Amino acid sequence: MSRSSSIPLWQLDDIVRRALDEDLGQAGDLTSEAVVPAEHRAEGSIVARAPGCLCGLEAAAAAFRAVDESVEFEALGRDGDEIAGGDRIARVHGPARSLLAAERTALNLLSHLCGIATSTRDLVRRIEGTGARVTCTRKTTPGLRALEKYAVRIGGGHNHRFSLGDAILIKDNHVAIAGGVGAAVERARAVAGHTVRVEVEVEDLSQLEEALAGGADIVLLDNMPVAMLAAAVTKCRGRAVTEASGGIDADTIAEVAATGVDLISVGWITHSAPALDLALDFEST
Amino acid sequence: MSRSSSIPLWQLDDIVRRALDEDLGQAGDLTSEAVVPAEHRAEGSIVARAPGCLCGLEAAAAAFRAVDESVEFEALGRDGDEIAGGDRIARVHGPARSLLAAERTALNLLSHLCGIATSTRDLVRRIEGTGARVTCTRKTTPGLRALEKYAVRIGGGHNHRFSLGDAILIKDNHVAIAGGVGAAVERARAVAGHTVRVEVEVEDLSQLEEALAGGADIVLLDNMPVAMLAAAVTKCRGRAVTEASGGIDADTIAEVAATGVDLISVGWITHSAPALDLALDFEST
Amino acid sequence: MSRSSSIPLWQLDDIVRRALDEDLGQAGDLTSEAVVPAEHRAEGSIVARAPGCLCGLEAAAAAFRAVDESVEFEALGRDGDEIAGGDRIARVHGPARSLLAAERTALNLLSHLCGIATSTRDLVRRIEGTGARVTCTRKTTPGLRALEKYAVRIGGGHNHRFSLGDAILIKDNHVAIAGGVGAAVERARAVAGHTVRVEVEVEDLSQLEEALAGGADIVLLDNMPVAMLAAAVTKCRGRAVTEASGGIDADTIAEVAATGVDLISVGWITHSAPALDLALDFEST
Amino acid sequence: MSRSSSIPLWQLDDIVRRALDEDLGQAGDLTSEAVVPAEHRAEGSIVARAPGCLCGLEAAAAAFRAVDESVEFEALGRDGDEIAGGDRIARVHGPARSLLAAERTALNLLSHLCGIATSTRDLVRRIEGTGARVTCTRKTTPGLRALEKYAVRIGGGHNHRFSLGDAILIKDNHVAIAGGVGAAVERARAVAGHTVRVEVEVEDLSQLEEALAGGADIVLLDNMPVAMLAAAVTKCRGRAVTEASGGIDADTIAEVAATGVDLISVGWITHSAPALDLALDFEST
Amino acid sequence: MSRSSSIPLWQLDDIVRRALDEDLGQAGDLTSEAVVPAEHRAEGSIVARAPGCLCGLEAAAAAFRAVDESVEFEALGRDGDEIAGGDRIARVHGPARSLLAAERTALNLLSHLCGIATSTRDLVRRIEGTGARVTCTRKTTPGLRALEKYAVRIGGGHNHRFSLGDAILIKDNHVAIAGGVGAAVERARAVAGHTVRVEVEVEDLSQLEEALAGGADIVLLDNMPVAMLAAAVTKCRGRAVTEASGGIDADTIAEVAATGVDLISVGWITHSAPALDLALDFEST
Amino acid sequence: MSRSSSIPLWQLDDIVRRALDEDLGQAGDLTSEAVVPAEHRAEGSIVARAPGCLCGLEAAAAAFRAVDESVEFEALGRDGDEIAGGDRIARVHGPARSLLAAERTALNLLSHLCGIATSTRDLVRRIEGTGARVTCTRKTTPGLRALEKYAVRIGGGHNHRFSLGDAILIKDNHVAIAGGVGAAVERARAVAGHTVRVEVEVEDLSQLEEALAGGADIVLLDNMPVAMLAAAVTKCRGRAVTEASGGIDADTIAEVAATGVDLISVGWITHSAPALDLALDFEST
Repeated sequence: MSRSSSIPLWQLDDIVRRALDEDLGQAGDLTSEAVVPAEHRAEGSIVARAPGCLCGLEAAAAAFRAVDESVEFEALGRDGDEIAGGDRIARVHGPARSLLAAERTALNLLSHLCGIATSTRDLVRRIEGTGARVTCTRKTTPGLRALEKYAVRIGGGHNHRFSLGDAILIKDNHVAIAGGVGAAVERARAVAGHTVRVEVEVEDLSQLEEALAGGADIVLLDNMPVAMLAAAVTKCRGRAVTEASGGIDADTIAEVAATGVDLISVGWITHSAPALDLALDFEST
Repeated sequence: MSRSSSIPLWQLDDIVRRALDEDLGQAGDLTSEAVVPAEHRAEGSIVARAPGCLCGLEAAAAAFRAVDESVEFEALGRDGDEIAGGDRIARVHGPARSLLAAERTALNLLSHLCGIATSTRDLVRRIEGTGARVTCTRKTTPGLRALEKYAVRIGGGHNHRFSLGDAILIKDNHVAIAGGVGAAVERARAVAGHTVRVEVEVEDLSQLEEALAGGADIVLLDNMPVAMLAAAVTKCRGRAVTEASGGIDADTIAEVAATGVDLISVGWITHSAPALDLALDFEST
Repeated sequence: MSRSSSIPLWQLDDIVRRALDEDLGQAGDLTSEAVVPAEHRAEGSIVARAPGCLCGLEAAAAAFRAVDESVEFEALGRDGDEIAGGDRIARVHGPARSLLAAERTALNLLSHLCGIATSTRDLVRRIEGTGARVTCTRKTTPGLRALEKYAVRIGGGHNHRFSLGDAILIKDNHVAIAGGVGAAVERARAVAGHTVRVEVEVEDLSQLEEALAGGADIVLLDNMPVAMLAAAVTKCRGRAVTEASGGIDADTIAEVAATGVDLISVGWITHSAPALDLALDFEST
Repeated sequence: MSRSSSIPLWQLDDIVRRALDEDLGQAGDLTSEAVVPAEHRAEGSIVARAPGCLCGLEAAAAAFRAVDESVEFEALGRDGDEIAGGDRIARVHGPARSLLAAERTALNLLSHLCGIATSTRDLVRRIEGTGARVTCTRKTTPGLRALEKYAVRIGGGHNHRFSLGDAILIKDNHVAIAGGVGAAVERARAVAGHTVRVEVEVEDLSQLEEALAGGADIVLLDNMPVAMLAAAVTKCRGRAVTEASGGIDADTIAEVAATGVDLISVGWITHSAPALDLALDFEST
Repeated sequence: MSRSSSIPLWQLDDIVRRALDEDLGQAGDLTSEAVVPAEHRAEGSIVARAPGCLCGLEAAAAAFRAVDESVEFEALGRDGDEIAGGDRIARVHGPARSLLAAERTALNLLSHLCGIATSTRDLVRRIEGTGARVTCTRKTTPGLRALEKYAVRIGGGHNHRFSLGDAILIKDNHVAIAGGVGAAVERARAVAGHTVRVEVEVEDLSQLEEALAGGADIVLLDNMPVAMLAAAVTKCRGRAVTEASGGIDADTIAEVAATGVDLISVGWITHSAPALDLALDFEST
Repeated sequence: MSRSSSIPLWQLDDIVRRALDEDLGQAGDLTSEAVVPAEHRAEGSIVARAPGCLCGLEAAAAAFRAVDESVEFEALGRDGDEIAGGDRIARVHGPARSLLAAERTALNLLSHLCGIATSTRDLVRRIEGTGARVTCTRKTTPGLRALEKYAVRIGGGHNHRFSLGDAILIKDNHVAIAGGVGAAVERARAVAGHTVRVEVEVEDLSQLEEALAGGADIVLLDNMPVAMLAAAVTKCRGRAVTEASGGIDADTIAEVAATGVDLISVGWITHSAPALDLALDFEST
């Protein structure tokens, strides 16, 4: 399987090992040692119990490989594939004890990432045809940010900042300290020179004016009613990129996109997307 | 704040540092450096935007402390407290740049753990008065198992196995390999001696008979219709502890508990509980 | 060589790398660089200088593999084999510098684990035919617990708790705090529910009565004279599993086992078992 | 307590944390949580159950400090003190749960190091008045070398090489590859220049002649009968430092030292010294 | 000393510990143990032996603190200060052994960072009054990138990309693969949307046309003769930010800046700047 | 490629991974993802842009291997080879994205190590025919000591102490504490016994007398004018090894060597040697 994600292999392996350490502890798998003969080999399939967007095959493969290099992991699809309930998404073959030791870690990663990709894709589809993009936020699960942002991309979304060092994004607390949107943008503009984008969060149209006057590249239109959002977008045309945020969900995203906003950022696709239900079924042999 | 969780401090610090590394990257917080004077001090409160069960104060405190030991973190409650939307749950005071650098990591941890505790408590309340206990599973977020299991306890739930090394739990794949529930339980019984509990998953009443005959301590009654579950529970009385599992949610947990089952295990409280909405609001000064 | 232990590969590799870092330092092997040509290949055998129970082949193999993946390590037996002085237990073949760089680390691990397995087996044999089991304790060498517990199993012993999180074991200091054996067991029973075993240490028959009354699953009969131990075992029959501990050695274990006790726990097999004498002999070529 | 060992603090902390991770697992201390109230404070003493040489106070203190910085650890002696059975060697005071969580790790480290220091001191005393020094070898417990070598120094012994990079020590396998003691020493001499000592292992007097002719600084007289050893020592006087090794124990060390040899290296003081029996006794309060 | 750099404390501590591990090894400081009494306290100053730009006080402080928390480190200036040969830049006070153990690590870090800041400042001064900025590259010393980029900022320079994930910079190898500058910029533009800057390296004016036509935000004018550079800058005015690179040094930077270019990137300030000569002088007491 | 350095593989991999983490961040290589098709394969050569001494092929290979095991790295020479500007020193072949992701890390390591080896070789050649050796110091780049000392050896130099635990070297600060060169050497001699070399720094001939009288094995003649150095060397003949240090560079090393001194230690070859200019050129395909 060729590597499709850009997550360095050792970062993936680190995540997998930490998860395996959690799951195997010091005593290893008591049940398999008691019940499964050491030499028993098995074959099984990872099966979807619900429809969704496939994501995380490499992470699952890494879990099996970390436990036992002799396990064969055959992907039956690619990240980004649409899957239906009942679909087999990968096959594994190897010592039964090794399969059982890696099973939970592989499924936990895979179902978490599929969950994010699935929720993202759902939103993306709801705004297809508009020019808007779905983006994620920094509201990610501690330790899994790079993987979760990858899942967002697989689902058709875009990534906003990976870290506080990626770009300047002035939020309400910064504005309060700087003494206003205009002052904050000016300070940022001076430091950033012409190579770093400056984004600023605004709550109403008067703050928006200040932001545009100060030379903001992107404005984050936070928690605005749709009508105000539309007015704001109109004002920004040709002057700044627009981003909507704040409690946007599957029910409301279409009307938000209809305002012509460029970006719609949604926190819950990384922090609250439900996991996709998956299982590893052994074949009778 | 005295430490109420039993998670060793360095394990918590490891999780916090990994999350901070994700969020600060190599370049640190560009925005604060540009907009917030180095000597500016600020004060703020972590505020709940929705009702729930408070959980993770220590983790939040650890995030601020890791960034800057001079930040004061004052908890305004204790893990396990019921909170309403609008409640302030902690106050922080210190250099504004430090508060801003730790903010997202602290909130991500806190809202994740509050989410789990809140979902758990909701289930627990729905079965109050029955003898049943809500337990979590090994379907946890990779890297966060110990914290998530702590959140389940705070929500009033109980922890099942932390790892594969804690106890013997024979599942369908093991049964298939061993050639039947009876054979599997016997093998396990022989290895386990009298100090390790043997649990086995059964799908119907005939498998249940085998399990009881083999001397299982606990039977996992998986995906049974309520009537069959009730029959199974009756059969087990005085002979084995009973555990129900499989797609149980807030709507169905009461009728499951009414069967008299001892344990009800629910995967989604750790893998899919929505995060609780929290924010850090700076005070105007 | 198939993996017989349940210690995850990366945990073994961690131990091996830490040991190799200690032994190679930053400067590497000055002697080999000075005396052994880089291209020189060698062949050698790991030879026992004393009889014992073989244990740790995987750890030894991991040491050679970590230094140089091109080294061939051929096990000439399996963990658990009885070996005599002079027996060859493994052969290695590869670049001489690599063999010499890994030699000490491989032998240190192997002789330590063989030592534990050998001492354990000796005790196990002395009580053969009784129903008693030899178990180890948490008195292990820091950093090596999982490997040492594995060596105990290979020697025919059983593992007690791996960590404080595995089970409840109420000891004298807990009893003092709780205000008596009965009170301590009751508190534990309430928390543990029906899925966690409760063990309690008792020093005399009156404490034993309290323990049984409180519903202890296992009683640890600490430092009892043999006659008292026998009486205690009789009292417990059908009510609780019994475990003897306290200064039991090769001379006394048989009479302890003769009381009918279920478990005999011995600290020194992990903290003071003498290492087995082993060497790596190069063949003349 | 001032730091007497030269082991960097973070290396000690690493060892302590790894040991605590082994002992606390993910679930923490189930027993204390069940039986000991969170707010209960306790006071206790670490007491020797047998006489010996005290060693490892800092390591014990580090274990308590790592679990809970609020624990007070008061050393009642210094590393190197002679202690009798029954002596109290340290007092601890703090939250009872914290004391119980650190207890086993602290005692495991302390009893291991005291054991090595005690065995070393015994040997050192048996050769007092001769000019010989007891030295340890690289036969140490994986992961604990620096601490074990410290314990040897505390017991009055001396450290030989810490790692393969410290000095040149040509052993039998090197000699075989180089084609003789003389050839090996010459090669080493050429590389080493005048700043690195060259030591070579010899098995008889003719090899010794070669070693001296080649310019060895130190000769390791391995497994020689006492008479041959004495002859070798005489030959080396004024020409090379002498080191005896091979199966030397408490019974034979005095006659070895009587030959006038400079160094006596003993592997078992680090790999097989029995641990000193210690306990933590809580005071009734 | 307040923290002026934005390098997270634990990242700094990691670098310091790794360096201390290199310098102290397992045996610690043999010389100090032999020559300096354990209780001896000393006082000393870090003194510049040459003029330059001060940088790295926090890193130096971290080295002393890591060895011994009781060492007092008093900065006598701030990062960014101009220093003359002979200037004292910090004072340390504490146990002599601790000062000596940390000395080399502290000086190695400080002299490396001062070296970079000094070389950077020299370049910055040579172009003062022009609008050009000196920027560094990704040609940094492995393991020290964040610290080195901080030193560049202290010297008055600016940071370009911290990592490959910060921005799009299309270089010659990418152009070759994409089949031309225009095609490469177009592909990048499509992916990047309006939130990520696209920079492209061009070697002549015709490539520059393609870049501008494609909508590049920044053009990297690589290795151009000054006349061509000037022409390129003129072409870009109002259309793209310009960056010059390629073998620019102290002798040539002024004429490069005179072309009106916006950014001048210089690799050698991070990979080849000579260290500043510093020493720790103990006071006679 | 066989491994010529004695740096353990995992230490090299650690350095490489840390550097790759710096360079890839969490987002990976944005440019390649945007511009280079995932399936595109490329071939390229690492080319020297200036003459020098080749060093670090293994480190470069490790960088490509860490990113993608399928990349083929073919060394076109060996560490220690003389290379001319324009020479190709290695070829790489594999997925273009993988080559581009590893490129900077591989080149940064290689050019740093080539730089040290080149500067060292230059010095070594200037004193060819004298008996003097060029040695490095502990003034190394934090985190890279073992690699840098390897580069010194490749350049024909010799390594002095790797760490403070390798040998005793009494410097001015120690002398001040001990109350004179003689007293310091005596204390060291007493502790060191006959197995550790004692070196002492002296600044004039009277200190030299003290050093020799005290039995120093090596004297470090620091910052002496050449005439004094020559006199000192004469005095030491047959009594101690001599080492010159202090501001010695390419211009002065020959006259220093002409004094007959044994060792010449030079700090700047590890802390300030300019990197060798190298590039990765893709082939047109």
